[in-house]
Amino acid sequence: MLDVTKSRRSIRRYTKQEVEESRIMQIIEAGIWAPSGLNNQPWKFAIVRSQEVKEALARQTKYSSIISNAPICIAVFLDKDLSCDRTKDTQAIGACIQNMLLAIHALGLGGVWLGEILKNADNVREILGIPPHMEFMAVVALGYPAEKAVASHRKKPGEVIVLEK
Amino acid sequence: MLDVTKSRRSIRRYTKQEVEESRIMQIIEAGIWAPSGLNNQPWKFAIVRSQEVKEALARQTKYSSIISNAPICIAVFLDKDLSCDRTKDTQAIGACIQNMLLAIHALGLGGVWLGEILKNADNVREILGIPPHMEFMAVVALGYPAEKAVASHRKKPGEVIVLEK
Repeated sequence: MLDVTKSRRSIRRYTKQEVEESRIMQIIEAGIWAPSGLNNQPWKFAIVRSQEVKEALARQTKYSSIISNAPICIAVFLDKDLSCDRTKDTQAIGACIQNMLLAIHALGLGGVWLGEILKNADNVREILGIPPHMEFMAVVALGYPAEKAVASHRKKPGEVIVLEK
Repeated sequence: MLDVTKSRRSIRRYTKQEVEESRIMQIIEAGIWAPSGLNNQPWKFAIVRSQEVKEALARQTKYSSIISNAPICIAVFLDKDLSCDRTKDTQAIGACIQNMLLAIHALGLGGVWLGEILKNADNVREILGIPPHMEFMAVVALGYPAEKAVASHRKKPGEVIVLEK
């Protein structure tokens, strides 16, 4: 598990191979088992396979080729009708997406968490026909990897632990 | 990995056994390998073992006995000096905490994500002597489990997938 956490990398290029429906469901299931404030489970998902819809989403971000070339994109929403607290709900969405990314990696797939597209959140919602009470939170693009994971870096624990008492 | 995701539960009671420093570092390391917007790594951690400090934190929440009885509490902060975007940073903190919870579970420890204490975020910051540019985001309490995981429930995928296109 710790290895999965540390070896996960953003994968931005995919083969044409389709992603099995059963795997998509495993990824969604990993997401929904994230914790949330008062177990309010504020996440909602839109699964996009249609090339036409992917092209429309791709036009909302500078990372368009990732979206248009990914076999599957999962748009994640925060259902504000279920809201408990803005900060806690947003954290829960992050926990949910992280579970999805770990599942993607553990299944031998590759994926990337796309946030830049949030600048056009309302357009994305309209393209997908999602009602306004669902706030667009991220796209996870995924498929079978067509590139090797590249090195990433993190600060050392000593740089982020600010206090021990 | 998928099993770890699904079998993780909140553990709120702990034995008196101390948690090894090496395990604490593995938990922090799991946290810091979370993704963040532009890899800004906005998380900071305060590790609390002192009973006196735990008692002071415990007075800031209705879940005081969890904090005062946990061998270790890790307070997680968002370093606003590193901020890229409020929503994305808050999601990244959620992803970081989720990695920590999965590591805790994978290491045979038990932990719980405490959010109710955010109502007294400024007090927590002052008790720990953390500067105002670091926003208090959660406490993760942990130790060796003194209770069995209880059943939890989640909505079915069909209830949270709002669109397939």
